[in-house]
Amino acid sequence: MDKFDSSGKVMIKKEELSTYKVRIASKNSFPTAAGLASSAAGYACLVYALSKVFNVNTDVRKGGIDLTVVARQGSGSASRSLYGGFVKWEKGVQADGLDSKAVQVADRDHWPEMEALILIVCESEKDTPSTQGMQNSVATSPLLKHRAEQIVAERMEQIEKAIKERDFETFGKITMQESNQFHACCLDSFPPIFYMNETSKMIIKAVHMYNAYKGAIRAAYTYDAGPNAVIYFERGEAKELLAFLLHIFPPTSNISDYINDVELATESVNIFSPRLPEALQGMPVQGAGAVSKIIYTSVGTGPCDLPTSDCLLDPSTGKPFEVRNQ
Amino acid sequence: MDKFDSSGKVMIKKEELSTYKVRIASKNSFPTAAGLASSAAGYACLVYALSKVFNVNTDVRKGGIDLTVVARQGSGSASRSLYGGFVKWEKGVQADGLDSKAVQVADRDHWPEMEALILIVCESEKDTPSTQGMQNSVATSPLLKHRAEQIVAERMEQIEKAIKERDFETFGKITMQESNQFHACCLDSFPPIFYMNETSKMIIKAVHMYNAYKGAIRAAYTYDAGPNAVIYFERGEAKELLAFLLHIFPPTSNISDYINDVELATESVNIFSPRLPEALQGMPVQGAGAVSKIIYTSVGTGPCDLPTSDCLLDPSTGKPFEVRNQ
Repeated sequence: MDKFDSSGKVMIKKEELSTYKVRIASKNSFPTAAGLASSAAGYACLVYALSKVFNVNTDVRKGGIDLTVVARQGSGSASRSLYGGFVKWEKGVQADGLDSKAVQVADRDHWPEMEALILIVCESEKDTPSTQGMQNSVATSPLLKHRAEQIVAERMEQIEKAIKERDFETFGKITMQESNQFHACCLDSFPPIFYMNETSKMIIKAVHMYNAYKGAIRAAYTYDAGPNAVIYFERGEAKELLAFLLHIFPPTSNISDYINDVELATESVNIFSPRLPEALQGMPVQGAGAVSKIIYTSVGTGPCDLPTSDCLLDPSTGKPFEVRNQ
Repeated sequence: MDKFDSSGKVMIKKEELSTYKVRIASKNSFPTAAGLASSAAGYACLVYALSKVFNVNTDVRKGGIDLTVVARQGSGSASRSLYGGFVKWEKGVQADGLDSKAVQVADRDHWPEMEALILIVCESEKDTPSTQGMQNSVATSPLLKHRAEQIVAERMEQIEKAIKERDFETFGKITMQESNQFHACCLDSFPPIFYMNETSKMIIKAVHMYNAYKGAIRAAYTYDAGPNAVIYFERGEAKELLAFLLHIFPPTSNISDYINDVELATESVNIFSPRLPEALQGMPVQGAGAVSKIIYTSVGTGPCDLPTSDCLLDPSTGKPFEVRNQ
């Protein structure tokens, strides 16, 4: 398509546009099929990008389409990924799913101290794709049924309140309880589904030990449908927490290949030198490689437009550039 | 105490007897603190032996004491261990616990084809003693509460019926579902409790794969508060099932150190030679040592009297024999 105006907007009649076919090229900078919502990010980008290409009215107040309802057909997490900040998915009650959508609880500037460490435990393909796993759990787990009917709504309300009040203690506790209960329901499925491995459990123990050392919940793990951990905390904890994690999960090789923020790692590394505080002792140091990568990150945005120089399609041919640097 | 008649029975007046102190020596031939009910067996023996020493009337129909109610103070499993065959623990409703007792569902001759393989995964001490773990779960797991109130009673009824009808398919399915749900509730506790490890999960997968190969539930795993598996099956499955397990979990050393029934192992070992059926392929062979021992067993008795030659106390001194062969 080459009918753009000077600002890059499409200048084609709506009727004509809807008949256009598109070529899609996508690139993913995150571990795939590892339970880190890579497919959700992909679906969200796809829906967002197509809405731009086809000039879709997405302003709900002006009769437009709620893109999160469209993305929801990819997955529930995909609908959430269209917003930045803190987002919830409201599953809705209609059979046609048209009221199943994402709602922003708070924007990304609401809780700027909130940060996360993502510990990549295993980048190999997982046994059970998450959507398929969830369908099996819905069909066979009596605990999941109880959880959905009796537990989730109240906890959602509590965690939403905690986010609005920036109450980390409550946010952290519910986050961990929800993670554990989700995996409990996977285990209650028949046959059972296991997403976490020994390293995941070790990280869970480390976080509980860290909180016991602090005398309060200062860090909170959560595991999606895979063994990788996301650990939330407020900025002030970053160095001590990372120092403890680096002690238990020493880098595989060069620190700059191991973690995306070498400066933080460098500042952390001597915090507990020459030895750990008593309350943090007793966790066995894991062999290098148990954790393969650590990503230090914070609350982000939803999909955004990139400059045309980042385009993956060659504008002169419409075909993908040769894949480089892979 | 030396006031025995010729048959070994105590000949002391009841009033005098109750003031006697006792010296107890005990020996355990089973892995301890590994989630294999070793403490239950110990409590049951202790209660049984003391009832003999103190000449307790244990005939409930004649106003005697129900020993299972006494053993229950050790643990729920201890009360079950006083009977052979298939036994259930009825928790009762009284606050004083005096109606919390064990009831035999079927005696050991009822289902003679029923056998088991116990796979010892790890004999090291476990993180969380089971009684303490259960108290934490009761206090913190909403799923355990639901399980206790809404799920267990119905499943108990179903499995009791399955045992009475020798319906392995139903027995096996409920056994596996109950095991999974128990461990799900451990995971739903806060902090979460993990009893199973990677090898435990591998055994679970192997059993599901074996059943898929057979097109029916022919083997059923269960895990108590530890990583060791008990796999139930009917005798006809023993060789094929063991052959498959020996393939995935090769012996650590000499086969006679690895399994207590070398004959069965020898007969099994060539069953799938030169190669496994297609339906049993795809499980990675585990390093030697993942399973350290296999015990082949069947439905047993409760506590029994041993000949005095097996006594652990020296009758001439009343003190324990020097511990030998340890």
